[in-house]
Amino acid sequence: MINGHGDDIYKYGGIRCNFSSNISPFIDTKQLRQHLAERLEVINHYPEPDAYSLEVLIAAKYGISPNEVLVTSGATDAIYLIAQTLRDVGTFAVNLPTFSEYADACRMFGYEEVVGNASRRCGHEERPCHAGKRDLLICWLCNPNNPTGEVQTTDAVKELSHRHRWLIIDQSYEDYTRKLLLSAQTAIDMQNVIVIHSMTKRFAIPGLRLGYITAPREVVARLRANYRPWAVNALAIEAGCYLLQSLEAIPTTLPQSLEATPTISQSLERLLEETASLRNSLQEISGIHVYPTSTNFMLCSIQQSTAAELKEYLLAHHGFLIRDASNFEGLSACHFRIATQLPEFNAELVEAIRTFVYKVKRND
Amino acid sequence: MINGHGDDIYKYGGIRCNFSSNISPFIDTKQLRQHLAERLEVINHYPEPDAYSLEVLIAAKYGISPNEVLVTSGATDAIYLIAQTLRDVGTFAVNLPTFSEYADACRMFGYEEVVGNASRRCGHEERPCHAGKRDLLICWLCNPNNPTGEVQTTDAVKELSHRHRWLIIDQSYEDYTRKLLLSAQTAIDMQNVIVIHSMTKRFAIPGLRLGYITAPREVVARLRANYRPWAVNALAIEAGCYLLQSLEAIPTTLPQSLEATPTISQSLERLLEETASLRNSLQEISGIHVYPTSTNFMLCSIQQSTAAELKEYLLAHHGFLIRDASNFEGLSACHFRIATQLPEFNAELVEAIRTFVYKVKRND
Repeated sequence: MINGHGDDIYKYGGIRCNFSSNISPFIDTKQLRQHLAERLEVINHYPEPDAYSLEVLIAAKYGISPNEVLVTSGATDAIYLIAQTLRDVGTFAVNLPTFSEYADACRMFGYEEVVGNASRRCGHEERPCHAGKRDLLICWLCNPNNPTGEVQTTDAVKELSHRHRWLIIDQSYEDYTRKLLLSAQTAIDMQNVIVIHSMTKRFAIPGLRLGYITAPREVVARLRANYRPWAVNALAIEAGCYLLQSLEAIPTTLPQSLEATPTISQSLERLLEETASLRNSLQEISGIHVYPTSTNFMLCSIQQSTAAELKEYLLAHHGFLIRDASNFEGLSACHFRIATQLPEFNAELVEAIRTFVYKVKRND
Repeated sequence: MINGHGDDIYKYGGIRCNFSSNISPFIDTKQLRQHLAERLEVINHYPEPDAYSLEVLIAAKYGISPNEVLVTSGATDAIYLIAQTLRDVGTFAVNLPTFSEYADACRMFGYEEVVGNASRRCGHEERPCHAGKRDLLICWLCNPNNPTGEVQTTDAVKELSHRHRWLIIDQSYEDYTRKLLLSAQTAIDMQNVIVIHSMTKRFAIPGLRLGYITAPREVVARLRANYRPWAVNALAIEAGCYLLQSLEAIPTTLPQSLEATPTISQSLERLLEETASLRNSLQEISGIHVYPTSTNFMLCSIQQSTAAELKEYLLAHHGFLIRDASNFEGLSACHFRIATQLPEFNAELVEAIRTFVYKVKRND
């Protein structure tokens, strides 16, 4: 395990708003919590060893086989399981900057890292530096990407799958974008693609730990052979089954999504509008650069100061927590990440950052 | 993952009593469930990446350092983490019959199995067949042992530690026996011993997935480097902290236990008395053999029939679920395991098995 992830709210007291967590603030978990409160006796029994009931429900929603689904204890658990299972491949590539767990999991299982253009290692090189090495290479793609919010087109993703032995796509943020992503069935048909999904993000329940993999059945069988029994806790299975069974309709506006409800779909509209508004306001601050994003969080950089100093200031003066992104490989001390929160907090954040930048400049 | 564990209650409808689960029926989780119902909002945030708050509380109860504790998502998660981390050792031994996950985890990570006396592979051989191989050998000991209920003396355990590079002791059932086991501190001082503990068993919360490892700090550091972040869900951490903080006293009657409350201690007394009574009644049935046990479950065998047939009969006629133990390596089709339940059910079980045996004999 490496240190320094986002949502490190547990370290701090008195946080008024947590901009370091990428979870949407517009998703209401009240109904789910009421349901779980009535079902807490599930803690008195072992969960299903393999969360099979939930796999059946997920498969039905996608129209795929339960043999093409593997439920995991959050998306991170899926990352480690995949790295372990495919470790004979021996070499991995990531497209920096990205979520650090892909590289961490691969290093843990003895993979070598492809050395190339540090910011574009995963198949985007202009020269084909992996020629002849295709069979030895697993490529990890976070799409939408954390921490940048970028989304690769489905054509770009297909191209990546042709250029690598395995393409692992972490679609944890799939429900937080309007961009078209690979459907579960399309990815399965590509044979060498494994997709990671996060119910944590979709339903705003990161504390429960709930994710799943969709992949060709031969791949799922290999993963399952390496998986430990009772890996997914009983309340997570209960929550997953409840949420899928209480969903009303397949949305037409979110083709890549499993089954966002009208509520989730509407909340996404609000989330992305609010994100655009926040991004515009931040960009107007001289000395703050905001990178483009297709989802609810954005990568920023600050001139004349550091992310650490800004984080400290926002904590002390506003009880706001942001993600110091300087420990993402490929980024520097000036980078930070912000995820959209409720409008009143977003407005206060913009003013707070503006004040900080003004103070820094005056002291220079 | 292998199939065929106990507590497969999720497969069956209409179970009146589950004798296949080794969890004590005398532990009341009502107060905990009330607490969790009030704290369900923890599902809305990421848990601590490493369950540190709970590690601090566990360490304080034992009087050891938090650096000597690693909280895991149940004891099974600990087994896989240990097998992964020590995989350079290359060879493992288990004392059959025992919990199948030790061998399964080791095979998954490429260990070779020591071939010897199938029923006594783990250091109990009369001839020292592992001579010269000590540095290559990891020995797994389940103590009390599942499925037999046997407990090794602390002297026998120390002897085992001298004879192997690593001794892993799964003390998941430590709170369900009066026999003296190794204390966390004693095991740490032995340098090559890693102890697995289960809060699942102690507090009857298998659905939450909560266990921990105690070991020398160098070992914990190696294990932690291989551990994934957010592995333990937020409700499990909440439950663990609540349970440890609401404990009143260190019991004098359970020296090996972490901190059983008077309630747990009293419930153990009842559990073991009831187990003795159940065992005596079962032994009186001609054609049923009951092995000795020092805990709340017992291994049995049936003549003139199979465990599978008995299981089917008890399900169909009484809604009772027992553990068909025939898939434990070293056991056969006649073996089954029973864990003590509430007195009225135990009495009904004895009569049901007596009737089954009588019917089988009449049909012969």
